[in-house]
Amino acid sequence: MFGLIFFLRKKKISKTFKKRLKEILGYNPRNFRLYEIALIHKSASLRLSDGSLVNNERLEFLGDAVLSAIIAEYLFFQYPNKNEGFLTEMRSKIVNRDMLNDVAMKIKLDSLVISKVNDNTSQNLKGDAFEALLGAMFIDRGFKRTKKFIEGQFLQKFVDLKHLQKTETNFKSKIIEWSQKNKQDISFESFEESTNKSKNTPVFISHLMVLDKVLGTGKGNSKKEAEQKAAKEALSNIKKYF
Amino acid sequence: MFGLIFFLRKKKISKTFKKRLKEILGYNPRNFRLYEIALIHKSASLRLSDGSLVNNERLEFLGDAVLSAIIAEYLFFQYPNKNEGFLTEMRSKIVNRDMLNDVAMKIKLDSLVISKVNDNTSQNLKGDAFEALLGAMFIDRGFKRTKKFIEGQFLQKFVDLKHLQKTETNFKSKIIEWSQKNKQDISFESFEESTNKSKNTPVFISHLMVLDKVLGTGKGNSKKEAEQKAAKEALSNIKKYF
Repeated sequence: MFGLIFFLRKKKISKTFKKRLKEILGYNPRNFRLYEIALIHKSASLRLSDGSLVNNERLEFLGDAVLSAIIAEYLFFQYPNKNEGFLTEMRSKIVNRDMLNDVAMKIKLDSLVISKVNDNTSQNLKGDAFEALLGAMFIDRGFKRTKKFIEGQFLQKFVDLKHLQKTETNFKSKIIEWSQKNKQDISFESFEESTNKSKNTPVFISHLMVLDKVLGTGKGNSKKEAEQKAAKEALSNIKKYF
Repeated sequence: MFGLIFFLRKKKISKTFKKRLKEILGYNPRNFRLYEIALIHKSASLRLSDGSLVNNERLEFLGDAVLSAIIAEYLFFQYPNKNEGFLTEMRSKIVNRDMLNDVAMKIKLDSLVISKVNDNTSQNLKGDAFEALLGAMFIDRGFKRTKKFIEGQFLQKFVDLKHLQKTETNFKSKIIEWSQKNKQDISFESFEESTNKSKNTPVFISHLMVLDKVLGTGKGNSKKEAEQKAAKEALSNIKKYF
């Protein structure tokens, strides 16, 4: 990492970039290079002399984990009487790709991302850059500052907890919509998993089929839940492959 | 949460508990009650007057997230030249249930857990309590202290990164071992998922079958990977159901 920053330092960082970054962050970065790396999509990876590639994926890995912890803490205190199942579900509604892509656009981070792909074919590029930015922030300024940013610039501004609480994402209806629009025949194949004996919780597996191919698989304690998950996975595959 | 702590405060915390907890933590907790809650397994949940249950699951949710972030940071700096795929894999080797159960026993946390189940039937109770303890620590003393604890008392003492790097967990051979020992006929059913067109990465799905029932499902870019994951899931189901 540090060798890498040394390598990059040869290039000069533009004043415009610095200015716009500061506006987004609301503070003065100590190490601009980290934030620069956070904005390099893998399609625009830099190749170092030793052959290794530099892009924002490592920072995204870190930012994703830090974001997850900060949201966990936030929800823990926002909902003192809710159980962990509720907290987990709320968190996954907050950190889903659509939400992160959306916030990246709202804070105008998307225009700073360097990539070589068509924006429409790589939807998640924006949200990934947002997570990578959080990773850079965490290394540059620590946990507390990152928490302050996430709470102030993301959660309080763009996340309506009460609304999210009521939202039940219906992936099944979304996939049916897709199939009609794209004239693809889809069907669910569901069956019960062999659980057994001591515990009596049934486990269902569902496959979302397009013709005779599986496009998504899901698993849950009810057929409905398994189908929802299969539809969710199918939708994410659709984004990738169609 | 705070109402809850008030409720619990009526009971006196034993001196032995305090002493043993301090030995494990290596510091003086500010709020002992948090740590007490961290050690209440759901089987021994307390029921409050409003009907809600108190156990360590909420703290486990929080501790899990914080642990994940701290390990991510640790690996990020330990491996400055590795990509995020490697970091993700290493993290999942470190935070797997066996490892967490093991560390809970090594630091003697297991003896402080309050539960009403037979220890053997609920293997993960120890590791879950370890995560909940980290959640309590995080609330009580903040991110830095929790990081210091995880690095000093867990990673540096019990995690051999070089060894882990070489370890490829072979779930397939483990499940075959199990089937022979328990005289269960198992088989893999694998097929290719309909990916398509633009991207040419194949996706395989594999089911681990016991007679005609599915015990685990896996997915990967090769048949081998899908089978490994199916075997892994089957092993986790075996722990739950057999």
